[in-house]
Amino acid sequence: MNAIRPARLRGVLAPVVTPFHRNLDVDVDAFAVHCRWLVENGAGLAIFGTNSEANSLSAGERIDATDALIAAGIPAAMMMPGTGTSSITDTVMLTRHAVQSGASGALMLPPFFYKNLSDEGLLAYYSEVIERVGDARLQLYLYHIPALSGAPISLNLIEQLLKRYPDTLAGVKDSSGDWANTKAMIDRFATEGLDIFPASEALLSNALPIGGAGCISATVNVNPAGIVRVHERWNQPDGGALQEQATAVRKIFQSLQMIAAMKHVIADWKGSKDWRIVRPPLTPFGEQAGQKLMADLQAIGFGMADGRVRAS
Amino acid sequence: MNAIRPARLRGVLAPVVTPFHRNLDVDVDAFAVHCRWLVENGAGLAIFGTNSEANSLSAGERIDATDALIAAGIPAAMMMPGTGTSSITDTVMLTRHAVQSGASGALMLPPFFYKNLSDEGLLAYYSEVIERVGDARLQLYLYHIPALSGAPISLNLIEQLLKRYPDTLAGVKDSSGDWANTKAMIDRFATEGLDIFPASEALLSNALPIGGAGCISATVNVNPAGIVRVHERWNQPDGGALQEQATAVRKIFQSLQMIAAMKHVIADWKGSKDWRIVRPPLTPFGEQAGQKLMADLQAIGFGMADGRVRAS
Repeated sequence: MNAIRPARLRGVLAPVVTPFHRNLDVDVDAFAVHCRWLVENGAGLAIFGTNSEANSLSAGERIDATDALIAAGIPAAMMMPGTGTSSITDTVMLTRHAVQSGASGALMLPPFFYKNLSDEGLLAYYSEVIERVGDARLQLYLYHIPALSGAPISLNLIEQLLKRYPDTLAGVKDSSGDWANTKAMIDRFATEGLDIFPASEALLSNALPIGGAGCISATVNVNPAGIVRVHERWNQPDGGALQEQATAVRKIFQSLQMIAAMKHVIADWKGSKDWRIVRPPLTPFGEQAGQKLMADLQAIGFGMADGRVRAS
Repeated sequence: MNAIRPARLRGVLAPVVTPFHRNLDVDVDAFAVHCRWLVENGAGLAIFGTNSEANSLSAGERIDATDALIAAGIPAAMMMPGTGTSSITDTVMLTRHAVQSGASGALMLPPFFYKNLSDEGLLAYYSEVIERVGDARLQLYLYHIPALSGAPISLNLIEQLLKRYPDTLAGVKDSSGDWANTKAMIDRFATEGLDIFPASEALLSNALPIGGAGCISATVNVNPAGIVRVHERWNQPDGGALQEQATAVRKIFQSLQMIAAMKHVIADWKGSKDWRIVRPPLTPFGEQAGQKLMADLQAIGFGMADGRVRAS
C-alpha cells in the first residue's frame, strides 16, 4: 500500500481541556467551540492529553467525542489525539480510530500501571500496537511523562523504535520538565526527522534554535495566540519580550492544579460556571483560589483578549 | 429495595493470573481450568487484579472473560473481581457487571494516572462510582497499592467512606508491603466490620490473631492449598511449620517478576508453554531464569502437588 501520510503538525499545540456537563458527560458543543477558538488562534489540537482528563474517559467516550468534533467541522488534520492507555486493546482501538479519522498523528502514552518496565517490554508494546493498527498512515508520537506514567521513554527506546519503524515514528513529547533531557532528544533525533516537543512554552526560545518542533503545552488552552507569537517571532527583535510575556502567564498556572485552574479561567471568561467541572478524582478550583488566580492574571495585564489573535 | 447482599469472601484469595493465546486474546478455557483448581483447593478468586494483567485488558475483555468463567461453571460467589480503572466510566461499567453477575464483591483500585490526589478527590471518586452503580448488593473493597497506583488509600479516606457508605464498604486489600500500615488498618477497622487483607501469606500469622480477614496474594496462584492450610491451622501445633513452608515458597517468587515467574511455573507443571505468555509491556520469563526458578522450588521440595489439596 502506498498510503499518503498526513502532513505533520508542528508548532504550538494545546492538550485541549475537556468540558463536561453536570452529569460528567463530555459537553461536545463546548468542546468544539473551544477547539475552534484554539485553531483560529493558530494552535494544533492535542486532544485527549493529560490536561484533557483523557484517562478519566473510556475509549468509547473518546471516540464519540472525536467523531462529534469532526462532525462539528473541526479539521481532523489539526488533531494529534492521545491514544495511549494502560490497556493494549484500547490503545490499538483508539489509535486505529485516530488514523482512520484523518488525524495528523497519535500521541501515545506508554502503558502506565506497571512500573520498572524494561525498554524491551516497551519496545514490544509499541511494536505490537503499530503492527495491530497496521496502517501506513500512522504517525506516532511517544509521550514521555515519567512523573505520571512511571514508564520513562528512554533515548535507547526511541532509537530502537526509529530503527524498526522509521516511517511511523514521528516524534516525542517530553513532559519530563528536564531541559537537559529535551535537549538530548533534540540533539540526537531532530536531524533524523523526529519532531521533539517540550511541554512548556517557557522552553520555546531554547528549543527552536536547536531544532525543536514547537511545544505541546497546557497553557496553550488559555494563551494560544501569545504562545504562537513566540513560536513565530522568537528570533525577531521583539522575540525576547514575547517569550517573557508568555512565560509570565505560564508561571502563574504552573504552581497550581493546572487543569482545574485553566477550567476556572475559561469559565470566568465565558461566564459559564459549568466550564469549571472536572471529573473526580480531580477537584474543582475553589472560589477563593479562583479569585486570587484571576487577580494574579490581571496583575500582569493578561486577559482573554491576550490569549486570542488580535488585529495587528 | 431490600436486596440480599452476597456472603463475604474471607480467607485466602488468588489474584488469578490470566492465560493468553498466542494472539494475546484471553484463553478462557485455560482460565476456567485454573480458576476451578484454585476453588477446589480452597481459594477465592480475585480475578482481574494486578497479577492478572487486568490493566492490560479492555473493560469489554474483562466482562467477556467473566461471563465465560460463569458459563464454564465457576461460581460467581467465589469471585471478587478487580473493577478499578483510571476511567470512572469503565470502573462503573465493570463494577455494575460484577454485582449483577453475582460476584461476592468488587476490589477497586483508585484511578491511577493522576498523582498527588487529595482524599477529598478520592472520596468524591469512590462516592460517584457507588452512586452510579446504585445497587445495594455492592460490597466494595478498596485497593491500597501505592507503589503502582500512586494514589494511597489513607485511613482517613477509609473512615470517611465507611461513614458515608457503611453497608457498601466491606474491606481493604493492603498491598503496601508495610506491616505497620496493615496492622493500623486492622486495629482501626476490623471491629467496625471491615475485612482487611494483607497481600502476602507471609503475614497471615501476624494478621489473623488481631482480626485480619485472610490474604489476597499472588502466590496463591501456585500454592493455594499450602496457604489455605496456614489460614486454617495458624493457631494449631503445626501452624508455625505451615507458615514457614508457605513463606519459603513466597520468598522464592517475591524477588522476581512475579507474574512472568508464576506463569512460567504453571506452564511447566501443565506442560503447556502457552501459559508463559504475558501481554506487553511485561516480558516472559527467560529460559535460564526459568530453569533456576524450577530448581529453587525443587530445592525446598515444592512442586505442583504441594500447591494442591492432598489426601489427608
